Amino acid sequence: MSTNRLTLYHYPLCPFSRKVRIALFEKGVPYTLILEKPWERRIDFLKMNPAGEVPVLVDEDGSIIASHTAIVEYINETRVGLDLFGDTPLIRAEVRRLASWFDTLFYREVYETLVMEKLAGQIQSGKEPNSTFIRIGRMNLKRHLRYIEWLMERRNYLAGNKISLADFSAAAHVSVLDYLGEVSWEEYPETKAWYARMKSRPSFQSLLNDRIAGMIPPNAYSDLDF
Amino acid sequence: MSTNRLTLYHYPLCPFSRKVRIALFEKGVPYTLILEKPWERRIDFLKMNPAGEVPVLVDEDGSIIASHTAIVEYINETRVGLDLFGDTPLIRAEVRRLASWFDTLFYREVYETLVMEKLAGQIQSGKEPNSTFIRIGRMNLKRHLRYIEWLMERRNYLAGNKISLADFSAAAHVSVLDYLGEVSWEEYPETKAWYARMKSRPSFQSLLNDRIAGMIPPNAYSDLDF
Repeated sequence: MSTNRLTLYHYPLCPFSRKVRIALFEKGVPYTLILEKPWERRIDFLKMNPAGEVPVLVDEDGSIIASHTAIVEYINETRVGLDLFGDTPLIRAEVRRLASWFDTLFYREVYETLVMEKLAGQIQSGKEPNSTFIRIGRMNLKRHLRYIEWLMERRNYLAGNKISLADFSAAAHVSVLDYLGEVSWEEYPETKAWYARMKSRPSFQSLLNDRIAGMIPPNAYSDLDF
Repeated sequence: MSTNRLTLYHYPLCPFSRKVRIALFEKGVPYTLILEKPWERRIDFLKMNPAGEVPVLVDEDGSIIASHTAIVEYINETRVGLDLFGDTPLIRAEVRRLASWFDTLFYREVYETLVMEKLAGQIQSGKEPNSTFIRIGRMNLKRHLRYIEWLMERRNYLAGNKISLADFSAAAHVSVLDYLGEVSWEEYPETKAWYARMKSRPSFQSLLNDRIAGMIPPNAYSDLDF
């Protein structure tokens, strides 16, 4: 029997890393976090994942799993505990559709514009954010928050009656924007109520404790009563 | 029992649509193709998939499945025939890692630069392609083809010993570039041998017959002996 703990290479404000951290905790799997700045392109990290992206998971037996989509399916297949995807093929399809909505559309339209520009100074010292990209990202963010609001006016959780990876993916992405003080919660009451439920889960606590040097979040970020 | 055929809304040069078309054929599922130009943002199509993207699958019972990742998992869960993902969690993780490599990295670095510029005139009449994006896309394409070459020097199929969704995803993306005459096959002998095997599969034939008005592929595109 292996005595190694499961290890996750992550970056604190990477939404895909956050999604996997939540999923692991929800599955009851203890893990060690290792901070990786993917833009440094560390050779030993590239050997684990030639895509050069976090998160990367190293299982207790040393197996390396890369790509956040592959990681969450792998965790769900190999661990008991909360089923991340749901009971029927149709429900699982809806969960995967919404998880991929946030992992591709939200990421492209909000993270790659607004967040990347705000992180520019972290990646390249002294680099100024591009205000056009920030404006476009903020506009896109409103559209995505309205979509969550629309869903939450109709459903208990994002993909239906039960909590699933769709909620973890969405909350992971939204939490990065919340860290940056970019979410006007009062405009989205249903979304706020949903996010308050997500924030109060034990699986979310380590995300709320994340801090990046030079980028301190507003107090409301880690406040459960925001 | 329903008498409806399964229906797939697709666009011929959309790599995600192509991946799903191959997967359906490999599963032995007959289907009807409906051409959808996603940039027209047809209201009835947006009702099926608010993301506005092809492919969208309508199952025999009328269930709507959107997002290519969700669709292939759904097909694999609900249909017998070739297992698209493989036998063990580790193999499935490698299949999903590589499928996602092409669906995210290759798509972002090659499709969104090179292909989108070459398609610009289809989407907006008279629009000229941006030569910088085309140059960057061609550079990125070489890097990705070298990665396939590296894998195929070591493996029978992309993800290991057996054919899988990794091959279908990669071949779907590469086939779009081949349609545009962008692949210098002589530089990648192992990749060429692999692609020749993919091309000769019955599941690939309908892709080789695709033609878009005003964009005729080179003869080698549909030639099995290219």
